[in-house]
Amino acid sequence: VVGPGSTDDATILAAATQVGAGLARADLVVVTGGLGGVMAAASRGARQAGGLVVGVLPGADAGSANEWVDVAVPTGLGEGRNLLVVRMAEVVVAVGGSWGTLAEVALARRAGTPVVSLHGWSVDGPAADDGPRVVASPDDAVRAAVSLLSAPPC
Amino acid sequence: VVGPGSTDDATILAAATQVGAGLARADLVVVTGGLGGVMAAASRGARQAGGLVVGVLPGADAGSANEWVDVAVPTGLGEGRNLLVVRMAEVVVAVGGSWGTLAEVALARRAGTPVVSLHGWSVDGPAADDGPRVVASPDDAVRAAVSLLSAPPC
Amino acid sequence: VVGPGSTDDATILAAATQVGAGLARADLVVVTGGLGGVMAAASRGARQAGGLVVGVLPGADAGSANEWVDVAVPTGLGEGRNLLVVRMAEVVVAVGGSWGTLAEVALARRAGTPVVSLHGWSVDGPAADDGPRVVASPDDAVRAAVSLLSAPPC
Amino acid sequence: VVGPGSTDDATILAAATQVGAGLARADLVVVTGGLGGVMAAASRGARQAGGLVVGVLPGADAGSANEWVDVAVPTGLGEGRNLLVVRMAEVVVAVGGSWGTLAEVALARRAGTPVVSLHGWSVDGPAADDGPRVVASPDDAVRAAVSLLSAPPC
Repeated sequence: VVGPGSTDDATILAAATQVGAGLARADLVVVTGGLGGVMAAASRGARQAGGLVVGVLPGADAGSANEWVDVAVPTGLGEGRNLLVVRMAEVVVAVGGSWGTLAEVALARRAGTPVVSLHGWSVDGPAADDGPRVVASPDDAVRAAVSLLSAPPC
Repeated sequence: VVGPGSTDDATILAAATQVGAGLARADLVVVTGGLGGVMAAASRGARQAGGLVVGVLPGADAGSANEWVDVAVPTGLGEGRNLLVVRMAEVVVAVGGSWGTLAEVALARRAGTPVVSLHGWSVDGPAADDGPRVVASPDDAVRAAVSLLSAPPC
Repeated sequence: VVGPGSTDDATILAAATQVGAGLARADLVVVTGGLGGVMAAASRGARQAGGLVVGVLPGADAGSANEWVDVAVPTGLGEGRNLLVVRMAEVVVAVGGSWGTLAEVALARRAGTPVVSLHGWSVDGPAADDGPRVVASPDDAVRAAVSLLSAPPC
Repeated sequence: VVGPGSTDDATILAAATQVGAGLARADLVVVTGGLGGVMAAASRGARQAGGLVVGVLPGADAGSANEWVDVAVPTGLGEGRNLLVVRMAEVVVAVGGSWGTLAEVALARRAGTPVVSLHGWSVDGPAADDGPRVVASPDDAVRAAVSLLSAPPC
């Protein structure tokens, strides 16, 4: 689950929590960037629903992870850790949108990893046909993620 | 200069060569991802106009750089090298668009680095007001890049 | 646990398995580079003793992890992943020695992370007083690792 | 050229300056980690001898490079940039020794890149036969570096 780390938009944060919980209930491990905002909200949702939560941190200190992370990966790579979040994922769910989130969406699509987008970016350009699956609710996001996991690879 | 590495679109490649040449004539060092397509076209333009060309390679072997690269940086970071291309840049010019290019555009905007886009992506989302400066010709791209360099930082 | 990935030295491999098992029995999460040799042996030992095993892979494909890894971290960073293994660790146990292992020992010491060395490198130089704790058996390695964890930070 | 960034050992710093100058006079590009201590001393020597100097920085800000760097590569990778320094090099000259320097020596040897060591580490372990070429003076270091460049690859 990717999304802005510093938002205080209550709709976005509630959606991230519901997405995290839904993915955990579907027996998926939830991987985030380990910090605040959407990352913390999704982590909290997943943990409270009994899931395993991995946080791939920009800094070198495991202690900077939010309190719902089970396995912290302190990378020391700064923004470079976004690529690792994406590489760990079998499907990416983007909730809300910052430039960092758009970078993760694009990195995922480049790697052929399916992306679900909720309250986030839409893009138009040379490869846009192949872009994120845009959904309208947290439940739809979880359903889309699960169905993309079982679909043949793109 | 960023853009797709495997395109054979003649308009895109000619534009990249002109952009590279124009940046070199403006006494700017041209940094690319060091491989083919737009990267090679921009490198060739810059070199032939007397500029210095840096290639930040995904692999660990300097020998994979295109022939117009003066200083090869073999990173061994795979797609992670895109972040380094962006970090080396004071302004990013995107010519054409692939998912990798969009990732670089987003990484640059996240870092506050100005971006000029020619024949490429447009985006719509929460932070889109702050997006790339879209231009219509190689000359406009060079002019925009130079003016963004002299503008106050964003 | 770090060590050579391609050794077939039976003493080294048996030692790595015992170290992995001992660390798991001490309720520690075992992190390795996720591939073969010492990494696989330590992973197997830890898993069979009921522990949690993290594999931080050089490639971008989670499928390259050895079969005893519970949480695979496909980094795509090549040898750069060694730094992440070290950053995830609160204590590093090196079993056997290759140049890659020595790099991990040095990166750990640079970061102030304690290192235990079994059947591996000894170093002599400007900072050698501050080097790895050299031990003689897998049991000693586990005991040293646990005691270094509870010691004040160096 | 690699070596400690915070030393004030006059012998080490003078040696680094002489090594930088000698490599530049041999028409080699000098690559360092771009900061202070041995990195700055070697950069200064190379620049003053008319050479080209590349600085591969740990931070994301090109402005942190020492004043003798011609081409700054701001990586934002922290200590991970050491791997890039080594990958850019055809031969590594280590002057003096810190744990970071030893990591670079080991990463270079792992990659098959020849290493010359002056006033630095010696190592003893499973692969030590294949270790750095230990030399006694800056002139010997330059001579060894040049001869290792022309030798068949190891």
